[in-house]
This record gives sequence, structure tokens and C-alpha cells, in this order.
Amino acid sequence: MSDQPLKVALLGCGVVGSQVARLLDEHADDMAARVGAPLTLVGALVRDASKPRDGVRDELLVTDPEVLWERSPDIVVELMGGIEPARTLLLEAMARGASVVTANKALLAQDGAALHDAAAEHHVDLAFEASVAGAIPLLRPLKESLAGDRVLRVLGIVNGTTNYILTRMDEAGADYADALREAQELGYAEADPTADVEGHDAAAKAAILAGLAFHSRVTLDDVACQGISGVTASDVEAARAMGHVIKLLAVAESTDGGTAIGVRVNPAMVPRTHPLASVREAFNAVFVEAEAAGDLMFYGRGAGGAPTASAVLGDLVALARNRVLGARDPGESTYAALPISDPGRATARHYLSIDVDDRAGVLARVASCFAEHGVSIETLRQDGRGDDAVLVVVTHAAAGDDISATVAALRGVDAVRDVPTVMQVIGD
Amino acid sequence: MSDQPLKVALLGCGVVGSQVARLLDEHADDMAARVGAPLTLVGALVRDASKPRDGVRDELLVTDPEVLWERSPDIVVELMGGIEPARTLLLEAMARGASVVTANKALLAQDGAALHDAAAEHHVDLAFEASVAGAIPLLRPLKESLAGDRVLRVLGIVNGTTNYILTRMDEAGADYADALREAQELGYAEADPTADVEGHDAAAKAAILAGLAFHSRVTLDDVACQGISGVTASDVEAARAMGHVIKLLAVAESTDGGTAIGVRVNPAMVPRTHPLASVREAFNAVFVEAEAAGDLMFYGRGAGGAPTASAVLGDLVALARNRVLGARDPGESTYAALPISDPGRATARHYLSIDVDDRAGVLARVASCFAEHGVSIETLRQDGRGDDAVLVVVTHAAAGDDISATVAALRGVDAVRDVPTVMQVIGD
Repeated sequence: MSDQPLKVALLGCGVVGSQVARLLDEHADDMAARVGAPLTLVGALVRDASKPRDGVRDELLVTDPEVLWERSPDIVVELMGGIEPARTLLLEAMARGASVVTANKALLAQDGAALHDAAAEHHVDLAFEASVAGAIPLLRPLKESLAGDRVLRVLGIVNGTTNYILTRMDEAGADYADALREAQELGYAEADPTADVEGHDAAAKAAILAGLAFHSRVTLDDVACQGISGVTASDVEAARAMGHVIKLLAVAESTDGGTAIGVRVNPAMVPRTHPLASVREAFNAVFVEAEAAGDLMFYGRGAGGAPTASAVLGDLVALARNRVLGARDPGESTYAALPISDPGRATARHYLSIDVDDRAGVLARVASCFAEHGVSIETLRQDGRGDDAVLVVVTHAAAGDDISATVAALRGVDAVRDVPTVMQVIGD
Repeated sequence: MSDQPLKVALLGCGVVGSQVARLLDEHADDMAARVGAPLTLVGALVRDASKPRDGVRDELLVTDPEVLWERSPDIVVELMGGIEPARTLLLEAMARGASVVTANKALLAQDGAALHDAAAEHHVDLAFEASVAGAIPLLRPLKESLAGDRVLRVLGIVNGTTNYILTRMDEAGADYADALREAQELGYAEADPTADVEGHDAAAKAAILAGLAFHSRVTLDDVACQGISGVTASDVEAARAMGHVIKLLAVAESTDGGTAIGVRVNPAMVPRTHPLASVREAFNAVFVEAEAAGDLMFYGRGAGGAPTASAVLGDLVALARNRVLGARDPGESTYAALPISDPGRATARHYLSIDVDDRAGVLARVASCFAEHGVSIETLRQDGRGDDAVLVVVTHAAAGDDISATVAALRGVDAVRDVPTVMQVIGD
């Protein structure tokens, strides 16, 4: 055990930052034993130093980054979020020789390359476990435990807000607007819920997961994104009738025989027997399909001060131990450098409900729309009669573009009144 | 990238070993990129070199360990199982400077200290992800990702054989003997199923998990162990009536205000809403309750050649990369050195069904047996009337010894005909 403490600085000291400070204090002996040296908090950069923060002594609060740098932190923990000034501050911290822990998914997904390059250039560590699925140990296992395997697909429920809304729609029969309002009242959704419900938050996490799983650089712009604001109570009911539940999934998958990556966020129907179906309310889970390991799932809390702080501190201990041992984390792995495949060519089974006039020959005309676009039908069922007639179709795996073209063709058929639900379906 | 290959030797080349050899070959380019140097298999120690092994060239098969040592392996992968000769061979490998990957839970649980001490003495790595819950990345996350948190309790379904049997008893209403026979026919259970059904296999894994979670040395002898051979169809039915399912759990928990460790294996009733309840058939899962992170679960395949090989290769890549970088894994963490608490004082909610004569005053006499032993009743319900009268009791958390004393007292009550089911109940 070294007596020389390792100096930790926080950038940002809100809900997560104050939990990090509290745990650094309460678990100080345990962490010192695990690191091989004590950890000491030397400062926290905040906008308003006059506002007291739980568990952080006033003299540690600074508003000027220069004051923080003068205290020579060994490890800088960034919990501000957003692109700037987080980006500039982290680059500065690394240039000054500090290792960096960040939970900033937006920055990593938009400009992770700049951070990784700086870490390599300055021979420091960059860790970001807390950026995806909060408390769940996920990124380190993906990087390290599966290093001898090949990941085929990652399916993640990585946004607690949308999972809460979809759970309420499924379990209480709520419609989207009511479920969103309830999530807002409970503090699970923000007043402006756009980033969550339109899938942007999940898309940033999808980019990070895809990069790690497939050893390539993937950015937010690579992610095809569709949120849940278009999911209706009748979509949810349709999924239920088929023994499925709708989840917003972040999907990263090997495509084109392993030569490319597909990465997207969209709502999908998941069979109730699938482990992801039982992930309720604001919990997160990431399901990994690997060549040798088979199916794996990692489950836990995706947000919240203490859970996120747990992930931050795990990284902090690892990076601090590296400092003590003169070691470094493996660093970014992008040797595969795979391109992103065309999202329209991504294949999946699809569910379609088609409102039709119940008359002779309709089925044949509907079926021919599928056939003409090369979409193979797995099951077709007619529900109701007369004005309520609905054809429920589940396709074999088909490209999204072919499904779109099929739907356009269906809408041109006289006897087709509407195609209210079109959604991907995950296999068992 | 170094051109100098790292030399890998296998001890044992059965189902898992031949999968390791296959994946080393098929994923050679990926692994070389991830390690920073190629990995080359230099030999596999087997009992019978004349028996061909899939994916391993004949000239690599050796029966004399000296021949293997002469090839100077950098990393030795032990997949023989059992105590000897595995123990002697691993100590020899480390003395010769090789890092070691092992899946040998029995050896780790019985004499892990000897292995850890040898690794420290010879400055080599010892990794054993595959020893618990097969393919599931679990030990590295426990050691590393939760290093800044405090684990409160670990609940594991870590034996696929017993989980298959209990799943069949629950879902098909099979009795124990039939479910065991079915498991044997499918190859999930061995001809002599003792090690699985009596909980010995799970107990070894419980010891390993407890040691990692609580930074202490824990051995097989520390684990209080009860298997599933006494679980009856009526126990399963009783659990079902209460909305629960019976699982064989490996439990490691912080006791006595964090100053001791409780570690045991026993069947327990789990609420169907708990994530562990949905772990079916031969799958494994480990549920971790941590102070800051909250509830986490790790799910996947617990056995099988390819899944186990995936975990072995993850360790192999990590240790090989350490060799390339001149680094080492953190090593054993036993700073807490916590004692094992008395298993009879371990507290849990308990379910009891009590067959009684349906007459006045019985309830009061039964209740007084609980009260006299300091066991507080959470719910009490009478099912049936007359000769079929059964009192169903769920207690608040109570020590196992107090429950046993209560049951002995109940059996001494005239009006009590039998106490057919006594089982721990996990909270939501």
C-alpha cells in the first residue's frame, strides 16, 4: 500500500457527482485497499460554487478550471454531460496527464474518436462504463470477457424512460400520452421528453455498444433511429395478442457475413418468453448473442445517482490501480474497422396488421404485394369479418426497404383500408 | 503487433478443450489483433494420445507433462477438473513462469489459496471466469466493475442440472424422480447425479463467489449445503399457490453488520416477479444486490463446450495481453479477511406448511410455538377443513436454528400431524 494519495477531480457535481463524492468518502478504506493507495477528492468544477453540494466541502468547489488543474489531479471524472465544455475540459485533462472517467454518452457517440486519440497520445486511460446502462457492468465484460468470442448481435433496453412508458402501456393498457404523463409525474421523463422518446438517447448508447462489440468506430450519425411516439395502444394490443411485448431496442448486429455492422434504434415486438420481455419499468438490460457463449443478458438500473456512481467508481478504482501499478487499460480496439451497412437493407421479421374489405380475392392481392417485393410470409391470419376484417401478417426476415415498398403497394390496393401497425419482431 | 507468438498449452482436451482449440484456430486473426501478438497452441496434455481430438493435430497431444514444459508455454489452460493431478500441474506451470487459466471450481473452492499464493510468488496471472456460471462474464465484473461499490448479497442459480429439474417440476408438474430421469436422458444430469442434486457443485461456486464479492478467502468447507433431492411435487405446488417458484440458490451475503459472510446453498421460494424466477431449464444467472448499484443480474449458459470455451478464451486474451504489455491482473483481493458466520444464525423468511387437526385452539398452540422461539409470523392462512386442514405460515426473517426449533416444537403438538414443507423465501 502506497501512502501517496491519488488525486481525483470532478467536472460537474450534480446528482451523480455528489453520490461519487459521498461514496469516495464512505468507502474510503475499502477503495484504498482495492487500489493500493488512498483516493482523495481535490476539487469539483461547478458553475455556481455558492450552491452547497451534499457531501462536498465548500473549499473543494471551484468555478475556474485552471484552479482545478493547479491541484494536479491524477484522475478526472466528467459528469457534466453535453458536448462543450466537457470535450475541451477532457482533452485538457488528458493533455495534462490525467486519466479520465466519463459518463458522457453524447460526447462519446459524437466525438469519441477525439477522446480515444487523446488518451492514446498522452498515454492515459479513458473509461466510460457509466455511459451505457448506468450501473450495469457491461462495457468491460464486452471488451474483456468476450475478447475471445465473436459477438453476433446486441439487443439493448438502454433507455429507462421509454421502457417505463411501454411497460405502462402493456400492463395498464394506458395509451401513449397518458403513460408519458405518468412518467413525467414520477420524474422518469423530462418536461421535454424528445431525447428519450424519439430514441436519441438510446441511439448514442447504441453507437457506443456497436463500437465495442465489433471493434470499430461507430458514431451517432451511423445509427438509424425511430422512437416510440408513434406506438399506439392498438400496436401494444396487437403484440399482446401474439404473445409479445413492445420494447424500444438498441440493436447492433453483424451483417453481410461479418463484413459490416448494422446499428439502429426502433420499437420491436419481443416474445414474452424472451429474457428481455421481463425487463420492466425503468430497468435496463442488454442481451448479447455471441458465437461461442450463446445468449447472455446483463440486467440492472440504467440511471439514478447512486447506481451511476457505482459504475463511475468501478472505473475510478480500475484506473487508480493502473496508476499505482504503472499499467494501462487495453485502450480503444478498432482493428476491425467495419463499415456501417445500409439501414434499409437490415433484415428482421416484421409484423403487419392490414385493415381490409372482407371480400373474395383480397387475400390473393395482399399476398401478391408481399411476393412482388420479395417478402416471404411466415404466418397470415384473418381476424374479424366484414368491416372489422384485419389481416395479421408476420414475415420471415426481410429488409426494411422491402417492407416499406410492400406497405406502399398495399396502400395502393382498393380493398386495403389501412396498414396501422408495421413493426419488427425479434425471434425467440 | 509483435510477431513473437504467445505459446498456449492445454491440460486436458475433452469437450471444452477441443472447443478452445477450435476457437483459437478459427478466431486466430481477431485474437491476435486483440492481444497484440498471435497465440499458438503448443501442446495438449491428455491421458490417451492415440484418441483423436477434433481440431487438435495429433503431434500436439502429449501424455508426459515434461514434454509440455519443454515447449515453454506462456499460458497454461487447465480443463481436467478434479483436485489431482490438476493441482500439482498448475503449481508446476506457475513455478515455471506460466500464467494460468482454469475452469476448475472444485480445486479453487478447496485449495484456491495454494493457487493464488503461487501466482503471487511467481508473479504470474491466475484467471478462472469459466469456473462459475460457464459463459457468463461474472467474476471479472464482480472484481472490477463493482470495485467501488459494496456487495450486500449474491443469489446465484449456478447449477444447470438442478435448475432443469426444478423447471420441469414447476412447468410440467413432474415429480422429482421423473424430472431427474428426464434430465439424465437429455444429458443434463449424470448417471450418478449426487454432485449436482445434493448441491455440492453449487457449493464450490458459492465459495468462489463469496470470496470475490467480500474480498476474503472462502472454501467449500465454509458453505452450508442442502440439495434438491428432498423437494417434492407438493412443495412445488405450495410455492406455485403463493406465486413463487422453487430454485436452488447459492447465497453469499454480508452478515452481522458487514463484519462476517454467510454462505450457503439451499432450495428457496422465489417470487415469480423476481428476475431469477424467469431463469429456466439449464440456464444460469447470478443476481447481485449492491449498496450503490442496486439490483443487477447476469444471465447466460452455465455449461457446455462452446460457452465454457468462450469464458476460457476471454481470460486467455486478457492474460496474453498482460504478457505483451508486461502487465498483470490485480490478483487475489482478500484484504477484508471476514470470518464466516454461523449458518444456523443466517436469517431468511421461511415458508412452512403444517398439517393439523381442524379443531378449536390449534391455531393458538401453533402460534405459540413460533412465539416461544422468537419467530415472528408475517402471514398465516388455513387451507382446507377437517382432515385436509393445512396451516400455511410465512415468517418474517428468522434464523434457521430458530425455525428448526420451532418445527421440532410443532411436531410435539398433538394436533399437528406433520410439517411437510419448510423452505426459505426470497423477498421481492
